Order: sequence, then structure tokens, then C-alpha cells
Amino acid sequence: MPASSALHTDRYEFTMLDAALRDGTAQRRCVFELFGRRLSGGRRFGVVAGTGRLLTLLRDYRFGDEELRFLRDEKVVDAQALAFLENYRFTGSISGYREGELYFPGSPILTVEGTFAEAVILETLALSVLNHDSAVATAASRMSIAAGDRPLAEMGSRRAGEESAVAAARAAFIAGFGATSNLEAGKRWGIPTMGTAAHAWTLLHDTEEDAFRSQIEALGTGTTLLIDTYDIRTGVETAIRVAGTDLGGVRIDSGDLPTVAADVRARLDELGATSTRITVTSDLDEFAIAALAASPVDSYGVGTSVVTGSGVPTAGMVYKLVARQDAAGGWVSVAKASTDKGSKGGRKAAFRTLERGTATSELVAVSDGFEAVSTAAEHPDARALQVLLVDGGEIDAAYEGADGVLAARAHHEVAREELPVRALALSRSDPAIPTVYVDA
Amino acid sequence: MPASSALHTDRYEFTMLDAALRDGTAQRRCVFELFGRRLSGGRRFGVVAGTGRLLTLLRDYRFGDEELRFLRDEKVVDAQALAFLENYRFTGSISGYREGELYFPGSPILTVEGTFAEAVILETLALSVLNHDSAVATAASRMSIAAGDRPLAEMGSRRAGEESAVAAARAAFIAGFGATSNLEAGKRWGIPTMGTAAHAWTLLHDTEEDAFRSQIEALGTGTTLLIDTYDIRTGVETAIRVAGTDLGGVRIDSGDLPTVAADVRARLDELGATSTRITVTSDLDEFAIAALAASPVDSYGVGTSVVTGSGVPTAGMVYKLVARQDAAGGWVSVAKASTDKGSKGGRKAAFRTLERGTATSELVAVSDGFEAVSTAAEHPDARALQVLLVDGGEIDAAYEGADGVLAARAHHEVAREELPVRALALSRSDPAIPTVYVDA
Repeated sequence: MPASSALHTDRYEFTMLDAALRDGTAQRRCVFELFGRRLSGGRRFGVVAGTGRLLTLLRDYRFGDEELRFLRDEKVVDAQALAFLENYRFTGSISGYREGELYFPGSPILTVEGTFAEAVILETLALSVLNHDSAVATAASRMSIAAGDRPLAEMGSRRAGEESAVAAARAAFIAGFGATSNLEAGKRWGIPTMGTAAHAWTLLHDTEEDAFRSQIEALGTGTTLLIDTYDIRTGVETAIRVAGTDLGGVRIDSGDLPTVAADVRARLDELGATSTRITVTSDLDEFAIAALAASPVDSYGVGTSVVTGSGVPTAGMVYKLVARQDAAGGWVSVAKASTDKGSKGGRKAAFRTLERGTATSELVAVSDGFEAVSTAAEHPDARALQVLLVDGGEIDAAYEGADGVLAARAHHEVAREELPVRALALSRSDPAIPTVYVDA
Repeated sequence: MPASSALHTDRYEFTMLDAALRDGTAQRRCVFELFGRRLSGGRRFGVVAGTGRLLTLLRDYRFGDEELRFLRDEKVVDAQALAFLENYRFTGSISGYREGELYFPGSPILTVEGTFAEAVILETLALSVLNHDSAVATAASRMSIAAGDRPLAEMGSRRAGEESAVAAARAAFIAGFGATSNLEAGKRWGIPTMGTAAHAWTLLHDTEEDAFRSQIEALGTGTTLLIDTYDIRTGVETAIRVAGTDLGGVRIDSGDLPTVAADVRARLDELGATSTRITVTSDLDEFAIAALAASPVDSYGVGTSVVTGSGVPTAGMVYKLVARQDAAGGWVSVAKASTDKGSKGGRKAAFRTLERGTATSELVAVSDGFEAVSTAAEHPDARALQVLLVDGGEIDAAYEGADGVLAARAHHEVAREELPVRALALSRSDPAIPTVYVDA
């Protein structure tokens, strides 16, 4: 694992840097915007995640001997660009949506202001982090809505790259999950961890009873026993015989869950274990969770579907130049013209308009120039969506670390409360609220 | 980024370790197997990738003060387990498929032999690496088949978590891609890197001509110019006017590619730039690549679809206990009984049977005991699929690093040559060859 994040960069960013240093455009002030053109997968809202991670990676975006040697040896850039990178430190500003905030098509999720040279090279790192984490958080939020008051645990590490697994646990927690199986996520971000035993535990022992007895001795009767290694009904009976009616919980990892959960609940109750909880963990996604709403299930463990974004593994955000200075120092809004990928040029300010506390639109005020725009005064019921994350190179530490995660989780809960009821349905649809552009 | 990989582990592995140390089963010798029950997404074959990365992560699977303190403070395990982890070093053996090898349902991709204690805790790390990297490699191999002799470049870093992006570049290279945009992958694994300019480069300049002229001055006429920022036909003309007919290439990132590529080729030829190459990079997957086979395209850049496994973002492999010693030291084959997730107990040896050089089956010989099985003598045309990766704790360095990547890429090419023609089709299907189980 590299200590520097500086080579998590597509080569073309450095070749552009190199050429811009030669022709003098490197020093032109620029505004880059990170946004999504649409909500992939027919999602009704998106959830911003990764911002806090990105800020910390930005601190580590420095070029040491190893990175510079590689760029020199591979002839990626020439001596002038190497000298620039050797002293690189982002001195611009970044404003953006709070982590945990909702977003819609065209929401200016991050606005990066600086020279072309210092801002263009952050494209890949910013997109890698935001696209992955936001895809997971968006799926997780839908699952959290489907689960209602029942706790959700993320346990999909094995179905994601080992570092993405840690980021996924973090994103799921921000979007409403209560815990993760991933210990590194617990250590790095302070997320509660959970887990007791796998099928291997039962198979290791000569009998299921031996396995249950040993687990109870080690972890106490409050533990959760996995009861579906052999026959589930026998598993329930053995569990209660060994643990008594104070057994904390049983876990079911296979079968037709509504049927099996009802059977297990009935048998537990017959045996007097009326407070023993049922956790289910078999290939759940938001639809399966919703289908279990009427079943006697107490909590859910979700793996593959949450870490892979439940069919949308990347949020599809892009990082585009939207305004720049010309040779005379005047500001120009710019956008690619190709019809199928049109972007809207200009610097944006964003507000969520509300009516009696319910969101009605994503209001995006577009400015030709570099001046900060504010239409908040004209929209007294609108909530301003952008905060200053980096000010003249100074990263606001409040958004980083475990504290940043907790703040993002709290903010997500508040932002989700504003959604209209139609946003909570799981089926494919247009975005729950329209994006409205106005001139600033 | 942690220097240790030891907490890329699901909590339940350590709670099982803890309980097994208490009840004495921790020292039972075990065989765990990493395999896929099916090929997700109707794939006709799978490609093993990640093995070399896993071996290096296994070297770093050590518990330092930081990891131990977390486990103690969070009460994940007790003092006895902490002492075990403090001195942890994997002393068992791992045999498995070569990286780059093909796999089918039930292929014993990795076989991990050791005590329960030392082997059970590797589950999550092994699956994270193999599931992610194999999903990418499988998609990449299909793209490589579709592209035929035309070069493929991986440029999807922005659509994957920042570390998964590096692993994806590596997996795609193993499966037939020729280059990546990801510089960290170049530095870490020696993969060729590529890339010249984004739309931001053109938008930064006052005119497209200024941008092209500057890029040519910096990178020479052999560079590739991105011609679709404004009007593509004008872009072609400007490119050749500025660069001359020796221009290396043009890149098209939007539009209906078969139509646009044909137009651009015709215009380039009219202008005399008959050797200027055309690269296309707009939302390609294996199907889009196949559809361009008759178009005048010289190379492909693939982003989102390759790093997200083209609809199958995780390979869905599992890590299961298949054999263990009992209290008396005898060997017992074990498997979970639940009908919908049945695994086949017992230690496996695997061979690919061939007829005149073409694969006909995945032959899996199942042994009740711990003894090495060999049915190779009975199948003279069969190729043995497993190699020893870790021998009594000693990791074979030949499979690691940049050399390991090159060996895996070469091996993939050889293994793919053995596939029957029907395996090369892109549509959903059963596996190209059947998995046949025999008793060893």
C-alpha cells in the first residue's frame, strides 16, 4: 500500500499538466465540477459519500522520491512538470455537498477552484472515491428505508476489493446501517463491528451440539447461533437445549426466508425462547428486505448487494471543467458540445427548495463568472447545499475521520427526512425531485 | 492505508478462533477450499486473478501493536487469542490454480491446509482479492476475445474504488489488455500506461486549434488528439491541419461509434492521413466492441464496464471447510447440508482433460482423506491445474510482483487457446465445459 495517493491518477492528467506548463495555460484559474448527469439504475435519489475519505487522501497527495522517479523513468512528464509535482500542494478551494447529503442529476457535488495545473490532476482520485462510495451509500440508503426500524449489518467485505470493502462499510454506515463485519472499518472509522460464527465452526466440531456448546461457553448465551448447517428445525431445538431460552439470537443463511423465518419463530416460541432474535443473511437486497417486512425477522445482514451497489456498482459521476480564465484574465463558462454528453458550463450554487419541510426541487443557480453566487435570499425556504471543505489549501478537519463519519450519518438522516414519500419507493423511476437551473 | 492486512477480516473469524482456542479444536488440521459454485452472469468460463496479490498480502498478515490494541479494546477476542495473533504467521500450505488460469463451477481455485486457527482467519482477505480481481479478469478476457488483434486499454480507474482501480488494471492486463491509464498500476506492477488529453484540455484553451497545437508541441505528432469536444468533422480537419498527415491518432469519446468512426476514417483518408489511427472510448463493453469489429477502429479504451466486471462485479467465490481431523486425528470430509447451498466435501485435485489440445472437461478428483490425490496417471491427456503457492508457510515469490503478473498473462493466453470455439461466444450460456467429479 503506498503512503502517497499521488499516482492514483490517470496518465493523461499529467500529460495535460506537462503541456500546460509549456504553453502557459497551467496558471489559468479554473473551476472543475464533480457531478452526475443522471441517477443510474432508475434511482429516485443519490447519496453523497466518500467526501471525508477524499479530504484525507488529498492530504497525502504528495510526490516523494518514489513517485517522481517513476514519472521520470517512464517519461510521463518532463523536468518542468517534475519540479512542479515535487512541490505540489493543493492551494485552491473545494466546496461541496456535505457527506451523507442527497444528490440529483446535475447537483454540483464538488466544486474545485484553483489553477488548471493544481486542479486537473485531482480528477481520477476524486471520482474513484466519490463514485464508489456514493454507489454503495445510495444502495444502502434504499435498504435502510426497506428495513424500517430493524437493524442492518454490512457483511459484504468478501465480495469487494479489500480496500473498497472498508470504504463500503463506511458508506453503508453513513446511509443507515448499524454495524459491519469488517474489523479494519471498525479500527479506521470507529464503526461498530459484529459477527459470531460461520458454517465452518459447526463443521469443525463432531456435532452441531458441540459447536453450539463451545460457542456459548466462549461468547455467552447472548450470542447468535447459526442454525442452518444441517437441518434448521433440529438446529433450533439443539440451540435452545444448549443455550436455554435466554439465547440471544439465531441466524438463518439459506432457504426461502419468509417461510423459514416463520417456522423458526414458531418453534422458538413453542420452546419458550420468545425473546430470542432472528437474523437473516442470505443474499439480501432492498427488495428481499422489503419482502420480509411482515416476517418475524429482527435484523438483517447484507453482503454482496450493498458492496456492489445493488446493480449499480459505480455512481457514474464526472469531473468537468466548467469555467476558466482567458488570457486576459476574464472568466469564460465552458462545456463540451457533443450532444449526447452535454454538460452545463458555469459555476453553480445549489439549494434544495422545501415546502413545509418536504423537498420540492434541486435549485441550481448558474453563474458565468467566478463570483460566488447566492440566490438564497430569493428562496427563503431553500436549504443551501454546499459547504466549504478546503479553503485556500486548508482542509477542514471536521469532515474527516471518525467524527466526519458520524456527522455524515447524522446529516443523511436529516436530509432523508425531507424527501417526499414517492422518493421512498424502490422501483425504477425518474428522480424524486426535478433539477431546476436558474441564472444567478 | 495500513501496513498490515490483518484486519481485512470479518469479526466472526476471530470469534471462532477465540472459541476454538478455548475448546481445543483450534489445533485440528483443516482443509479449506476457495471455489465458485457457478459462473455468475451466464459466463462460459471464469478467469482466476488476484493470486499474486493475495500472496503478498499474506506476507503482511501480521498483527502489530495497533491491530492488537484494537482487538483488545473492542473485546473482539480474549488474552489467549491475542497471544496467538501476536505470534501469527501462516505455517500451512496453499495450492491453487495459477493466476490467469480458467475456472469453472467447482474448480478448487485455492486449497488452504493448516490448523483451523491459522486457516480460518484468511477467509475474508482471500475472497476479497480473488472475487474482485477474477470478476474483472473474466470480463476483460471476454473483451479481449471480442477485440481480436486490436489493442485494448483499461481506463476505468474513476469508476472503481481507488485501490480496486489498481487491482482492476492488473487483472485486465493479465486477461489480455495491453495498457492502463492508472499510473499506480504502472509503478506497482510494471503495466504499460497510456493517455494524452481530456476534454478539459481543449476547453482550457481559447480554441480547439490552440489546444491541439500545444499538445503536438509537447507530445509530438505521434500523439492522439481528442476530436469530439465541439464538432467532430471540424475536429478532424483542425487536427490534420495542425499536426499534418503524420498525426498518430484521434480519439472519439461520444456519438454512435460505428457511424462516427466510418465518417472520421473517410475524412482522415481524404485529407491524406491514411495511417492516423482511430481510438474509441465511449462506454464500451464486450458487446459494443464486438459490434465495432467491421468498423475502421484501431484500438479501444474501456472504462466502467471492465472495472465493474461488465454486469458481474464480484465472482461470488466462497471459502469453505471441506475436510478436518476429528478428535482422534482421523480425517473427515465435511460440507454444509442446506439444500440450496450444497458444497462438496473432501480434498480435491483438478485436471483439465483435453482432446487434440481442446478442453473437454474440468475433472475434479475428490478424496476423503488428507492424502494428496492424483488421477493424472489415469488421464494422460489431462493437464494438472494446481501448483504449490505456499509450502509450509514459505510463499513462492515467483507468483508475486511484476514477474508474477507477466507469467499470469502468458499463462492466460495459453489456457484460453485450449477453449472450445463455443466458449468464445459472448451470450449467456452454461459453462463451456462440464465439471466432472470422480473419486480419487
